[in-house]
Amino acid sequence: MKEIVEEQQDFVKDIHKMSDDFDRWYTDVVRKAEMADWSGVRGMMVVRPYGWAMWEAIQRAFDDMIKESGHENWAFPLLIPQNLLVKEAEHIEGFGPEVAWVTKAGAGMEELEEPLAVRPTSETIIGNIIRRYIQSHRDLPKLTNQWNSVVRWEMRSRLFLRSREFWWQEGHTFHSTAQEAIAEADLILGYYRSIAEDWLAVPVLVGPKTPAETFPGAVHTLTLEGLMRDGLALQMGTSHYFGQNFARAYDVSFSNQSNERELCYSTSWGISTRMVGAIVMAHGDDSGLVVPPKVAPTQVIIVPIFRDVEGRAKVESFIAGWAPELKAGGIRFKVDWREERPGDKYAHWELKGVPLRLNVGARDADAQQVELVDRLSRERRPVPVAGIGKAITAELEGFQKRLFERARDFQKANTYELSTLAEVVAHFKEQSGFVWAPWCGDAECESRVKAEAGGVTIRTYDAQKQPSGKCLVCGKPAAHRVAFAKAY
Amino acid sequence: MKEIVEEQQDFVKDIHKMSDDFDRWYTDVVRKAEMADWSGVRGMMVVRPYGWAMWEAIQRAFDDMIKESGHENWAFPLLIPQNLLVKEAEHIEGFGPEVAWVTKAGAGMEELEEPLAVRPTSETIIGNIIRRYIQSHRDLPKLTNQWNSVVRWEMRSRLFLRSREFWWQEGHTFHSTAQEAIAEADLILGYYRSIAEDWLAVPVLVGPKTPAETFPGAVHTLTLEGLMRDGLALQMGTSHYFGQNFARAYDVSFSNQSNERELCYSTSWGISTRMVGAIVMAHGDDSGLVVPPKVAPTQVIIVPIFRDVEGRAKVESFIAGWAPELKAGGIRFKVDWREERPGDKYAHWELKGVPLRLNVGARDADAQQVELVDRLSRERRPVPVAGIGKAITAELEGFQKRLFERARDFQKANTYELSTLAEVVAHFKEQSGFVWAPWCGDAECESRVKAEAGGVTIRTYDAQKQPSGKCLVCGKPAAHRVAFAKAY
Repeated sequence: MKEIVEEQQDFVKDIHKMSDDFDRWYTDVVRKAEMADWSGVRGMMVVRPYGWAMWEAIQRAFDDMIKESGHENWAFPLLIPQNLLVKEAEHIEGFGPEVAWVTKAGAGMEELEEPLAVRPTSETIIGNIIRRYIQSHRDLPKLTNQWNSVVRWEMRSRLFLRSREFWWQEGHTFHSTAQEAIAEADLILGYYRSIAEDWLAVPVLVGPKTPAETFPGAVHTLTLEGLMRDGLALQMGTSHYFGQNFARAYDVSFSNQSNERELCYSTSWGISTRMVGAIVMAHGDDSGLVVPPKVAPTQVIIVPIFRDVEGRAKVESFIAGWAPELKAGGIRFKVDWREERPGDKYAHWELKGVPLRLNVGARDADAQQVELVDRLSRERRPVPVAGIGKAITAELEGFQKRLFERARDFQKANTYELSTLAEVVAHFKEQSGFVWAPWCGDAECESRVKAEAGGVTIRTYDAQKQPSGKCLVCGKPAAHRVAFAKAY
Repeated sequence: MKEIVEEQQDFVKDIHKMSDDFDRWYTDVVRKAEMADWSGVRGMMVVRPYGWAMWEAIQRAFDDMIKESGHENWAFPLLIPQNLLVKEAEHIEGFGPEVAWVTKAGAGMEELEEPLAVRPTSETIIGNIIRRYIQSHRDLPKLTNQWNSVVRWEMRSRLFLRSREFWWQEGHTFHSTAQEAIAEADLILGYYRSIAEDWLAVPVLVGPKTPAETFPGAVHTLTLEGLMRDGLALQMGTSHYFGQNFARAYDVSFSNQSNERELCYSTSWGISTRMVGAIVMAHGDDSGLVVPPKVAPTQVIIVPIFRDVEGRAKVESFIAGWAPELKAGGIRFKVDWREERPGDKYAHWELKGVPLRLNVGARDADAQQVELVDRLSRERRPVPVAGIGKAITAELEGFQKRLFERARDFQKANTYELSTLAEVVAHFKEQSGFVWAPWCGDAECESRVKAEAGGVTIRTYDAQKQPSGKCLVCGKPAAHRVAFAKAY
């Protein structure tokens, strides 16, 4: 097997500049900010606490959303018998090449009667299980979700973005009507948009994929696409409507109101630890990460500044006076008492992208104030400790808002409106970003853009607006206004 | 491969009586209360929302405890290269026979250069990864934890208790002194005891395992042992102290205060979805489950009682008046509006073990009260709706307490003090429970009891008290007072 072997340095010494080499910058930041590393097992990563805590924040937020609307968490098996995996033809064609197989087990590593796939996704096993629990229309909808990891034998790897194991949630729902299932896929897309925009401060385009980019076995796939700081698009999550395709393959049926057997309509949808990679690439800079407060493991870092034991004691008791107010306000903060120089601490926490820093010295104690520095503007200004809990909460909210606005401005500045293939090819020779253009809906025109513009793909399209122009390739009347981009 | 194939009925029609057949009763309850089922993949279960929600409650409680004391969640790889797994000799001897191996992957199912184990537990991969992050004593302790599933190729299976995949947390910690690591293993045992007793209302014996029952590769293993209603013991969690054994095998070292390289001292510890099985077996009865309020997915079920549309409207608006008070009190409740007879609803929610039921009819609305029935006493009594939030909260606390007391009384009534092998053998021919007896510490005497008393093992021993008697087998002076039981 031919594979690209990832770098496996023990410690990253310096961070490459984002403008010099975005890819190296990304890997440096992820590793030096202690978010993740390669594990030593080829293509598989280890997620460290700082990265995992961001994923936990995303988990909590999304889990609350889906439970509120009646979804329930299940645990389905990790291993899927070969005969189940291959039942839906398009699906296995799409996933077959990426599957890892358990073929031996037990004492003496005996050969199994049938190979078991380590799940690459769980449509096949869930279809086979859920049908037991569905008799009549009264048992529907079944709104299932699970949090787990999946394995896909990728040949290229990139921390958080593409690895042989990744962590995600996979939702699978079963309905009595097509309409309801389509609405479910839309509902989830809305939740995902909220996670991206309200929690991660990453503005996204949302809409359908073209047939060529649709999930294997789906009728349609909805996507959310963020724009990273190198101008490349990142698919941040997908929500699929299957019609009756999977229900047919796995015989998931119900007796409808007329007491006839009918196949269920189903959906599936997932977001993954890729979201954590999006945080890095959408907000970072040459100093490292910038973490949105709502998912920041540490929202506020307090750096005490002192020269001697006496000074330390003074600062310590000063901090002890108002830190409980931060805690009571639910603010995630830390005091950095390590034996390092303040300047080194500043750089360390900037690298980790902590939104707010409070510098606290003896003179601040006298003045009953702290010096606030935020990771975005880097301006320093005094904040009185009276009412500090509320003040910091407001600062964090403001930071979250400004971070989103900055990303939205960046997205706007990197979005273009073009109308011919020649223009699109020329654009992507020099630039990146989203390019909107009219398209006839023909797969041949789509693949021609991909071939001529260096791998550019249609990320999504505007499902609402009827376009007026002509297809950028063939000149026939446009069916959709589509967003092209180079993508991860 | 020879395996016992589990029952795979589609629906359980009735529940066997606990007194007639405890094993069948257990499986019936787990399946009919919609907690879990066999998945169709041999030996692997599917955990349904009602069972999974109990596990989520345990997860939340334990995760809060360990984070409070500085532990951090990581995600380590699912697959472990063969060469890593075999490095610690005792460990691989213990786990080798239970490992499932990935040997093929990708397009064409190509043979991998090296088989990858689906983790049966992660000491080996974590040791190999964590050493990169440990340079000096200042990097210690490293307190890691992860929530995941593991695969062990068991030949016998039983829902929640023994299956080829189960869900757990595995903590792995690394320390600069033996003392600190030993204290860590003790600390976690205390947390586990709190989960068992304060959350699941299951009183436990806690203490060390004998060398024969110690985890492969550990210096000592601590355990918690609950007593199920059939009189068998259930090991509900373990906490292991490894000394430097794993650190030696995986070269996990640090430079100590004298600037010399020293091997770390490590621990590992885990509790699993087996805990959910303990809830069933420690509290259930012929009517089904009894779920402790602190982990109950539904703490209060409201059953509206009415004859006609008018009556329904009256009851509905009555409930709407005070239900918000329950919600505000953080009480997990549901209103059962299904079209079933009240009696069938009562049986349904009794089977599911919901602690409190409120029967609410039109006359209750007039009297501004509800009828409260609890799952333990089954007595009915009126509760005024004025202040119902506080009243129900108090009832739930009382229920949790009474459930624990009932289990503690059961444990007491089934605990014996014996002094000779003959007595122990005779006891276990007729009875079960915990039998305390003096033991010399010799493995031969231990295995003789096991052989003669039908598989009875030492579950744990009293590490504090110096025993006065003579070994029940050989008559030499006792080294420990030990607790024998038949166990799952």
